[in-house]
Amino acid sequence: MNNPSKLQGGKVWLVGAGPGDPELLTIKAARLISQADALVYDHLVGSGIMDLARADAHVIYAGKESSKHTMPQGDINQLLVELAREGLSVVRLKGGDPFIFGRGGEELETLAASGVPFEVVPGVTAAAGCAAYSGFPLTHREHAQAVTFVTGHLKDGTVNLDWPGLARPNQTVVFYMGIGAAAEICRQMINHGLPSLTPAAVVRNGTQADQQTVLGTLGTLPHRIAESGIKPPALIVVGSVVGLHEKLSWFEKQ
Amino acid sequence: MNNPSKLQGGKVWLVGAGPGDPELLTIKAARLISQADALVYDHLVGSGIMDLARADAHVIYAGKESSKHTMPQGDINQLLVELAREGLSVVRLKGGDPFIFGRGGEELETLAASGVPFEVVPGVTAAAGCAAYSGFPLTHREHAQAVTFVTGHLKDGTVNLDWPGLARPNQTVVFYMGIGAAAEICRQMINHGLPSLTPAAVVRNGTQADQQTVLGTLGTLPHRIAESGIKPPALIVVGSVVGLHEKLSWFEKQ
Repeated sequence: MNNPSKLQGGKVWLVGAGPGDPELLTIKAARLISQADALVYDHLVGSGIMDLARADAHVIYAGKESSKHTMPQGDINQLLVELAREGLSVVRLKGGDPFIFGRGGEELETLAASGVPFEVVPGVTAAAGCAAYSGFPLTHREHAQAVTFVTGHLKDGTVNLDWPGLARPNQTVVFYMGIGAAAEICRQMINHGLPSLTPAAVVRNGTQADQQTVLGTLGTLPHRIAESGIKPPALIVVGSVVGLHEKLSWFEKQ
Repeated sequence: MNNPSKLQGGKVWLVGAGPGDPELLTIKAARLISQADALVYDHLVGSGIMDLARADAHVIYAGKESSKHTMPQGDINQLLVELAREGLSVVRLKGGDPFIFGRGGEELETLAASGVPFEVVPGVTAAAGCAAYSGFPLTHREHAQAVTFVTGHLKDGTVNLDWPGLARPNQTVVFYMGIGAAAEICRQMINHGLPSLTPAAVVRNGTQADQQTVLGTLGTLPHRIAESGIKPPALIVVGSVVGLHEKLSWFEKQ
């Protein structure tokens, strides 16, 4: 393992912070966070993680919560270029994995166009974290030959998803940022052919001490969500693997 | 972070070892590996990772390479139960994430049926690792609204996949263990409607020092694979995000 005591200046590391539990950071992410001159982080970065930063580091919060974007994406892209041009080592920290619904690609395109060197550090994506802690083996061979991650929050603000591609047997589907559209998601999955008894769950703050899991089926989940009062950010997991939860969950039993 | 110096005996931790680079282990995985009384690990666990185990730990290699299964799955399941019943703290280490094509669910079912306590530790899945190091932003909003992970190696030994569900626009697809079936995969994706010019790549030993990436399109990839001599284990990534590689890869430039 490469472990220089000081990072190269004038460079940006696009780093996945994992699903929430600070112990689910990668060793590389933890090292970079503790070494960086400047850090730009998101709403979805788990609590406690920013405590690893140097006391004298520039720490900048870039948002974004589901409804209000604290800093427009274009400004974030530009900020990263400017910090690097000041000669700083910059860690851009995103919840989960930077290339799975993190808009990391867009930030890198700006860096590349500006000639700023960069490096990408993958992280445990939220779906894997929630699945591991909630007992949903995403690709159990008796249940699924594939798992699909899809955003419940499209660029144009709609949920015009590719329903015929999502509502398929033998597949687990995880909707990121889907809770606001849960009723529409469940309705469409049923309308496109999945049984209304297909197990489905919502997981909020997965892998963190305050993880919440709400279980149901495509038919009952919207009602269960309303009943429980569970709020974003949360994932929706759909597929028969969710039915293994009772047997395979361990986290809530601790 | 919970950091006891000794682990509870009689328990199994099902742990993801990440995509290969030992620095891409989670902090939790590294801690558990260094504390366990017994470790049972797979072919896909990156080199160097087992060096973290205690010198006096029982270390057991369970296979499996693509063509020969060193230890049948049923024997592995039973071994985990027996080690835990001897009162040992057992780490079951799998490449990537234990719930994404790791057969982790099957191992847990045996543990649950036997009354052995367990815990699941997610890891960075191979697709995320390869994508980050090769410059494929899996869900870049201009290219994909979803990413699907599918196995190229089904339980019955065929590649009878759900082609109409896989060959869709605006989706990135990653085939795990797909290289042996690459010609069939590319042919089927084209036959089910994807343009033969759709970018596609194979990545072997992603995130490790000897990572190999072979780039092409659905039309050219099988020939490129033959030409390059690239061998399993490797992933196939299909989708227009692969075309961003030239701009966004950083690893091979180091």
